[in-house]
Amino acid sequence: MLPFNKPYFTGNETKYIEDAVSSGKISGNGDYTKKCQAFFEQHYGFKKCLLTTSCTDALEMAAILIDIQPGDEVIMPSYTFVSTANAFVLRGAKIVFADSRKDHPNMDENAIEGLITTKTKAIVPVHYAGVACEMDTIMEIAKKHNIYVIEDAAQAIDSYYIGKDNIRRPLGSIGHMAAFSFHETKNIISGEGGLLAINDEEFINRAEIIWEKGTNRSSFFRGEVDKYGWVDIGSSFLPSEIIAAFLWAQLENLKQIQTVRKNHWEGYFDKLSDWAGANQIELPKVPEYATNNGHMFYLVCNSLEQRTKLLGYLKQNRILAVFHYISLHTSPFYAPKHEGGELPETDRFTDTLVRLPLFYELNPDEVIEALLKF
Amino acid sequence: MLPFNKPYFTGNETKYIEDAVSSGKISGNGDYTKKCQAFFEQHYGFKKCLLTTSCTDALEMAAILIDIQPGDEVIMPSYTFVSTANAFVLRGAKIVFADSRKDHPNMDENAIEGLITTKTKAIVPVHYAGVACEMDTIMEIAKKHNIYVIEDAAQAIDSYYIGKDNIRRPLGSIGHMAAFSFHETKNIISGEGGLLAINDEEFINRAEIIWEKGTNRSSFFRGEVDKYGWVDIGSSFLPSEIIAAFLWAQLENLKQIQTVRKNHWEGYFDKLSDWAGANQIELPKVPEYATNNGHMFYLVCNSLEQRTKLLGYLKQNRILAVFHYISLHTSPFYAPKHEGGELPETDRFTDTLVRLPLFYELNPDEVIEALLKF
Repeated sequence: MLPFNKPYFTGNETKYIEDAVSSGKISGNGDYTKKCQAFFEQHYGFKKCLLTTSCTDALEMAAILIDIQPGDEVIMPSYTFVSTANAFVLRGAKIVFADSRKDHPNMDENAIEGLITTKTKAIVPVHYAGVACEMDTIMEIAKKHNIYVIEDAAQAIDSYYIGKDNIRRPLGSIGHMAAFSFHETKNIISGEGGLLAINDEEFINRAEIIWEKGTNRSSFFRGEVDKYGWVDIGSSFLPSEIIAAFLWAQLENLKQIQTVRKNHWEGYFDKLSDWAGANQIELPKVPEYATNNGHMFYLVCNSLEQRTKLLGYLKQNRILAVFHYISLHTSPFYAPKHEGGELPETDRFTDTLVRLPLFYELNPDEVIEALLKF
Repeated sequence: MLPFNKPYFTGNETKYIEDAVSSGKISGNGDYTKKCQAFFEQHYGFKKCLLTTSCTDALEMAAILIDIQPGDEVIMPSYTFVSTANAFVLRGAKIVFADSRKDHPNMDENAIEGLITTKTKAIVPVHYAGVACEMDTIMEIAKKHNIYVIEDAAQAIDSYYIGKDNIRRPLGSIGHMAAFSFHETKNIISGEGGLLAINDEEFINRAEIIWEKGTNRSSFFRGEVDKYGWVDIGSSFLPSEIIAAFLWAQLENLKQIQTVRKNHWEGYFDKLSDWAGANQIELPKVPEYATNNGHMFYLVCNSLEQRTKLLGYLKQNRILAVFHYISLHTSPFYAPKHEGGELPETDRFTDTLVRLPLFYELNPDEVIEALLKF
C-alpha cells in the first residue's frame, strides 16, 4: 500500500543526537535548541522563538500569555484540528466558530467581525494546507477591536502572505504570536514537536518563564538574577535536545525538502487539472495573496458520495488517501456548547475534502495514473 | 570540573531511533511507546501507563483526571520542584503546604490531617531522592476523607515502600496515580520525558483521551468507534517515538544502571559516615519502610554557613555539588498566596542540603577524597 505519509530522514539526525549525548546535555534549552530557534528568528524575522514539545503546547503557551480567563471568547475556524480550540478551552475560553471561505477551508475573513463581542480576546486564523488566510483584513479587525491574533501556522512553515502593501511576509510573522508543528506529517519534522514564534515583544520575557515551568531560570543563566525560583504559572513546554538535534538535521535541508515537495504538488496540480474539471472536482486554490509551501495536496469532491467512491477506488489501487477534519462545532464535546449558527462551508469541506499522499520520497505519477482512470 | 550529572548512553539509543524512522512512524504512541509502557506495567504492576513529554505533563494529566476545579485544595510538601504545584495551580487549585519530616525532606505524614478542609481534593506525596513517604498513613488519611493521592515519583523509579503488612510495593503503585520523570538528571533518561502510572481503573479510559488531545483516537484504532473526534479537554501529552526509542534502550539496561548507581551511593555512605559525624553533617536517612534506588546522595549541613563553605571548597577542588529546592511557600509567586504557618523543616533543608555528583560513570572516590580533607 502506498502510504499517505512517510517521514523523511536526511541522514544527519542520529549523528546530531549522538553529539548532544556526548556533550552531556540532552534536557531542554541546549545548543541544538538555540540553533533551531536562531534559524527561525533569522530566516523568518520572528522576534523570539521557543521550541515546544508540540504545536498544541505552543498554542497553550499563547493562551497563557494573552491571559485567557474563563468566559473570554476566541474566534477560529471550525474546520481545524482539536488543539486549535483545546489550548484555549483549557484556560476557560468559549470558542466562537467562523465559517470557511467558499473557495478554501481557511476561515472567511468577512465572517469574523459579526462574531466579535466585548468578551472577544483573540482571533486564531489557521493557515490550512500552508496557504495564508487574508491577514490584512484580520489584522485590521483585531486592531480596531483591540484583540490579539494568534496564527495557527501548524502546516505553514516557509509559506508567505503578500499584503496590500505588496510586501511578502512569512506566515507566523504577522499576528502577535504563531504556533508551528514538526509532527511527522509536516514538511519539517521531529516526530512530535512545535515552535512558538513571538512577534510582539511584550510577551518575550514572560514566555521564557512559562516555558521553563514558571521559573526565571533563563534570567538566572544570563546572570540577571542571583538565584532562580517560582515566579509564575507555567509548564514543561521545552523539548529534549534529542528532539532539537533531530530537528536541526531537518532544518539544514529545508530548501531541498521544500523544492521536492513543491515539485510533487505542482505535478499533481498540472496533471490533474483536466481530469478534475471533467469530474466536477476542485483542486486546491492558492489566492493571489498567498504562496504554496508544498505541505498538502487536496481535492474537493462534489459530494460525500463521490468522495466515498474516490477513497474506496484509491484503496483498491493500493493508495492511501484520507479525509481530514470533522467540524469542531459538530463534535461530541463542543456541539452542545456551540451557540453560533450553521457553518455550511465548514460542513462541506468535512464531507468532501480528500488529501492525496505527499511526502519527499513519493512518485506522484503513481497516484496520478490511478486517478486519471477514475 | 567534575560535573554534578552526566547522562549515560547505553549504546543502543540511536540504533532504536533509526529503527523507528525506518518503520515510518516517529510521532507518538507507536511501537516503542507501547514497549516502554508495557515494561512499566509488567515490572511494577501499574494498571495502565502512558508516556508523557515530561513528569510535569504527567502531573497535569492527573490534575485534569481528578477534575481539579478553581478553589480546590491540594496538600503537598513545600520542599519540591515547582511542577508538583504548578500542575494543579494551572487548573485553579490552591496549594496547601505540609512541612518536611525532621529526619527527611519528605512531607511529614503527621502534618497532613490538620490541613484537610472540605475543599481538599488531593494529597501529593513527593518521594524525595527516591525514598518513600510513609504511605500507609497517607493512604489511610486519604481514604478517611475520600480524597485522591497522586504520587510525585519523579525521582522514585525502581524504589519501594514496605508497609505494615510487610508487602514490598513499588513506588508509584500505591496512590490513585503517579508521575515519573526521565529528565537527564534521573536514573533512566530520555532527555525530557515522563510517565503517568494509573492504579485506579476508573481513570484509564479518560486518560487515553486526554493524552490524545481530547480525542477518542485510541478507541478508534482499537475498532471501538467508527470515526474519532473531539470528546473532551486534553493536550498533546504523548512524546515522539524518537524519545520512546531512546527510553527503550535505557529500560533494557535498568538493572545494570541501578546496580552501578546503588554501588556509588553505598560507597559514599560507608566512606563518609565518620567524617559526617565529626562535622555534624547528616547523611541521607532511608527509613525502615523505604528502599534506596541510588537516585541521589545528599548531605544535610548543620548551617547555611557550613553549606556555603562546603560548596565553595568542593568548587575549588573542581567538583560541582549543588543545593536543591527553594521552599515553594517562600517563592515570589506563592509567598503572597501562602496562608499556612511557618515550615521550619522545609526551610532548614532549603538552607542546608547539598547534592553530591552521582552518575553512572562517576568514580565517587574522587569526591570522597576531597570531602575527607574538608
